[in-house]
Amino acid sequence: MLAENNELFDWVATLFPICRSITGDGLRQTLTFFKEKLPDMKLKEVPSGTKAFDWEVPNEWNISDAFIKDEKGNRIVDFHESNLHVVGYSTAIDKVMTYRELEPYLYSLEEQPDAIPYITSYYKERWGFCLTDSLKKQLANYPNKKYHVKIDSTLKPGFLSYGELIIPGETDEEILLSSYVCHPSMANNELSGPCVLAKLAQWISLLPERKYTYRVIFIPETIGSIVYLSKHFKEMKHRTTAGFVFTCIGDEKEFNYIPSRDGNTLADRALLHVLNNHANNLKIKTFFDRGSDERQFCSPGIDLPVCSFTRSKYADYPEYHTSLDNLDFISSDGLNQSLEIYKKVITLLEANNIYKVDVLCEPQLGKRGLYPNLSTKGVKKELSSRMNFLAYCDGKSDLIDIANKINVDAFSLMEFIDELIRHQLIKIRDENK
Amino acid sequence: MLAENNELFDWVATLFPICRSITGDGLRQTLTFFKEKLPDMKLKEVPSGTKAFDWEVPNEWNISDAFIKDEKGNRIVDFHESNLHVVGYSTAIDKVMTYRELEPYLYSLEEQPDAIPYITSYYKERWGFCLTDSLKKQLANYPNKKYHVKIDSTLKPGFLSYGELIIPGETDEEILLSSYVCHPSMANNELSGPCVLAKLAQWISLLPERKYTYRVIFIPETIGSIVYLSKHFKEMKHRTTAGFVFTCIGDEKEFNYIPSRDGNTLADRALLHVLNNHANNLKIKTFFDRGSDERQFCSPGIDLPVCSFTRSKYADYPEYHTSLDNLDFISSDGLNQSLEIYKKVITLLEANNIYKVDVLCEPQLGKRGLYPNLSTKGVKKELSSRMNFLAYCDGKSDLIDIANKINVDAFSLMEFIDELIRHQLIKIRDENK
Amino acid sequence: MLAENNELFDWVATLFPICRSITGDGLRQTLTFFKEKLPDMKLKEVPSGTKAFDWEVPNEWNISDAFIKDEKGNRIVDFHESNLHVVGYSTAIDKVMTYRELEPYLYSLEEQPDAIPYITSYYKERWGFCLTDSLKKQLANYPNKKYHVKIDSTLKPGFLSYGELIIPGETDEEILLSSYVCHPSMANNELSGPCVLAKLAQWISLLPERKYTYRVIFIPETIGSIVYLSKHFKEMKHRTTAGFVFTCIGDEKEFNYIPSRDGNTLADRALLHVLNNHANNLKIKTFFDRGSDERQFCSPGIDLPVCSFTRSKYADYPEYHTSLDNLDFISSDGLNQSLEIYKKVITLLEANNIYKVDVLCEPQLGKRGLYPNLSTKGVKKELSSRMNFLAYCDGKSDLIDIANKINVDAFSLMEFIDELIRHQLIKIRDENK
Repeated sequence: MLAENNELFDWVATLFPICRSITGDGLRQTLTFFKEKLPDMKLKEVPSGTKAFDWEVPNEWNISDAFIKDEKGNRIVDFHESNLHVVGYSTAIDKVMTYRELEPYLYSLEEQPDAIPYITSYYKERWGFCLTDSLKKQLANYPNKKYHVKIDSTLKPGFLSYGELIIPGETDEEILLSSYVCHPSMANNELSGPCVLAKLAQWISLLPERKYTYRVIFIPETIGSIVYLSKHFKEMKHRTTAGFVFTCIGDEKEFNYIPSRDGNTLADRALLHVLNNHANNLKIKTFFDRGSDERQFCSPGIDLPVCSFTRSKYADYPEYHTSLDNLDFISSDGLNQSLEIYKKVITLLEANNIYKVDVLCEPQLGKRGLYPNLSTKGVKKELSSRMNFLAYCDGKSDLIDIANKINVDAFSLMEFIDELIRHQLIKIRDENK
Repeated sequence: MLAENNELFDWVATLFPICRSITGDGLRQTLTFFKEKLPDMKLKEVPSGTKAFDWEVPNEWNISDAFIKDEKGNRIVDFHESNLHVVGYSTAIDKVMTYRELEPYLYSLEEQPDAIPYITSYYKERWGFCLTDSLKKQLANYPNKKYHVKIDSTLKPGFLSYGELIIPGETDEEILLSSYVCHPSMANNELSGPCVLAKLAQWISLLPERKYTYRVIFIPETIGSIVYLSKHFKEMKHRTTAGFVFTCIGDEKEFNYIPSRDGNTLADRALLHVLNNHANNLKIKTFFDRGSDERQFCSPGIDLPVCSFTRSKYADYPEYHTSLDNLDFISSDGLNQSLEIYKKVITLLEANNIYKVDVLCEPQLGKRGLYPNLSTKGVKKELSSRMNFLAYCDGKSDLIDIANKINVDAFSLMEFIDELIRHQLIKIRDENK
Repeated sequence: MLAENNELFDWVATLFPICRSITGDGLRQTLTFFKEKLPDMKLKEVPSGTKAFDWEVPNEWNISDAFIKDEKGNRIVDFHESNLHVVGYSTAIDKVMTYRELEPYLYSLEEQPDAIPYITSYYKERWGFCLTDSLKKQLANYPNKKYHVKIDSTLKPGFLSYGELIIPGETDEEILLSSYVCHPSMANNELSGPCVLAKLAQWISLLPERKYTYRVIFIPETIGSIVYLSKHFKEMKHRTTAGFVFTCIGDEKEFNYIPSRDGNTLADRALLHVLNNHANNLKIKTFFDRGSDERQFCSPGIDLPVCSFTRSKYADYPEYHTSLDNLDFISSDGLNQSLEIYKKVITLLEANNIYKVDVLCEPQLGKRGLYPNLSTKGVKKELSSRMNFLAYCDGKSDLIDIANKINVDAFSLMEFIDELIRHQLIKIRDENK
């Protein structure tokens, strides 16, 4: 499985150099890459100026070059070296300026002198350069030195692009899987998210049976989810049983669980159960620690059951939103571990049902080989878990509830459940709500 | 503001010497003082013998003099030196007695040898003197010494007096503000209570607008609240949204919050929010620590939403119900701090509404200057509080709820709320319940 | 009371030698003993093969002798020395075998080399001997030695026997009291249970009045409760207000409370209140620690409000299910203490009502001698408990609730309640649910 082990990392590495933004050709190129992996995915375009709730699709931004050249013609800041050097959505400029004149357009991080910060200005026209603070300090020594400053960008009516894949299941109850594709060259936030999601979607497509329909979307963050919701909210509101935002899942540090606004939806219960049983070093965050598209999915009136987990969490790790969030920051193992967690979440959601014992009193497991028929002093934990499971098959609790109550991993019960169903000792309640 | 700073203390000092009880001229004199401060207040009288639920208004008690004179004619215990020397509601006596005969009528505190205790016997006819235990021990040395013992009091049909001020508001939903005026010369318990309440009522009267109507009452404790409820319970039951009992708010020691019986009424939520954000050294007590008229306001079947806070709490501080609870025990600062707390509680109640975001998804605050339009790494706490506030404007939570959930002082949100309303991004839900 | 003090222990000692099982003459003999104590009890018999939910009454087992004799004819394992020596429900055998051949039929406990384990095989035909591990190790030294192995038992269609006593009360709401009588010579588990129950039933029969009807059953464990429920479930479901399983209540070690599946039934609340106030060293267990007939009574669909307490709890003490659970393990004091706890539980259930104050505001207790009429500084805990009790007589809380809320033993309120009822200050709400 070494091939698969590196596949996710290779995807990230392939996409890393592209200059993405919330619109533009970098975004299109990234979506095209994922369409190659998921041929049924549809690429969609929404024109600039389209209203979406309180927002409006902005003009499309494209950029081909940008630099700050010194008097000798050396590119001391070069877009082709790092696309983070340009403030996202910068308008075009082509001018000779002294450092003193240029300084208000420069962004750096005093506390991280070797990092290029990631800065954007989608909704106010601006231009600017991002650079390391150590370079900025050098330039500041010669305030009257002159520089050729150029940004070769366009900002004009165009489109906002996104990808949408519906993987049908037996019912039209849906699982929403969402990631974003609008960040330039950064690895954990964001390329880990859409790459793991694409790989997971491939795996879901191959499942022999699916109770749920899966709605998989690759969107620009914030404006993308707002635009998407403005088009699909009505159907999503009725169908969405659980949803997850894929972001910051590429490294190997602690796990962070970020609950939905409600905090106790099926999505929360499934994800938290899997994390509690399969993630080392789990931190339980609050909804106040949210920061991605769950901001929209969980907003009042929308209220979709959407939560997420991360490894190093946006806003919390020093490399976040800088050039230090690069390919060294993540790993094949980190990506693959996150994929495994999400596979387990999907497996658990598919297996999760409300069970009801179909006999009164305890069934006689012994005669079916499901319990020893010689009584002795001690009872093994696995056997007492069986009796405890049955004690809560009351037609009210689902598998996740029961596993939590009896303090076992839900996966450890699945085989026993199959046996119980085979012997007609339990049945599944119709509504899975 | 120095003038105001001492005003409350001066009021207490003026009222301190009066010999109040649950009926009588001392009570009338005190109510007249407050009527001068609150000209719209009505003074009311209820005749002795009037039934009130399980109780009956007792006879009116008045006293002009009382003493224990030794054989040389020296007043060794003198009502004019401290009105605490006489057991409240003592019947008249005029008799020469040996110490041995007198002793059963003497009350002192062994553990506080220099304090005169405060004792009453409203519902059983008795007479008695209260004195310091050190004096009592001296007298006990000469059991056969004779004394002239006199109490010049009357106990006969008359009236129970109280004051009632209704400050009208836009709605007839009411805030009940209650204090008691039946204790003789003691400062923290009780004069701090009615004086702060009178000052607060002046301030409320001058508010430019009031959502609520305010019912302000100055009553004798227990019998006064029972009599008042027996007359006004029906209207109070429908109208009372929140209520507070003003007592023991004159010194500068710890704050104590005493919940209502329900524990989670609007009164509790508003008071506790203000105390949590503005009171140092707050102790959360239970309903079992109650001790004033909330005993009646919260009794089963009455169940008004009434709670209170104190500084040094009745029954808990050694000086309580003794001559040591004097003007030295309280301070201008203590009184003014309590007034400020109650002003904040009223302000919060008036500002408290259930808000609902009036757009789907997050509103675009940036275009209205309410959020930065340049994205950077860190977000200031104030800005994330704004987004958190909006996330809970769900039409279910009121301002207090939201501020508690997102862990900020409600007062820090008020300006932002005004902006949101101005921009029609949130609206107030009709019912404020 | 010395007579009574030893009576329970004497009952256990009398019953100890009998070889009981889930059917058979030992069971009948034990039930006959209890019928002598409780003449109104009915003895019932259910034929082998009777279906009961997922189970079936097995054949009846009887045994007269069993041994392993060495070549010299010495009984080295002798049923008449301890009936634990034979695996319960062993089929007959009469054979000469080498130790090597015999070994698969021998059961011992390596960690408890001097204990004979208690083993049964009710639902699979087997035979076997239980012996101390030290004896087994000795025998193992001579694998080729020959032994005469004999079990003189019968296993054939017959009956399952149980006892049922209905003690009528004013209503047909029932308290279920259940214990089991299927274990051979062991003292704490099980003879303590049925003996304490029989004694309690005698005491209940003599109560001057009973609000509840009592259903007292002596059954074989598991199959007995399943058979009993299959016959009586419908009426029990409607009538059972609370129930308790009597087991492991003979020694003097810690108390263990084992909640019902629901965890907050009237049975739980009454038992826990009594234990919290009257049991030293109480351990709160969970429903997962259950192990006796509450497994059936609390199973989904049955859901009777049944819980229990134990001293040394089944499965938790080393002597459990071995020959070491003998008469030395229990004591007269242990048995009598458990009886007292259950008497208190019954007393509390009979006294438990929902009370409602019948006046508005606090009643004037002083004029009825129920509160001092001289006001002083400190109020005794007993008096403040009285006011707290009244504050919760709100027509919603029952005695147990209120006592828990105000943190007193319910028994300390009973006299005061009688006074309040006499003075018509409180009344009992009709429904006791």
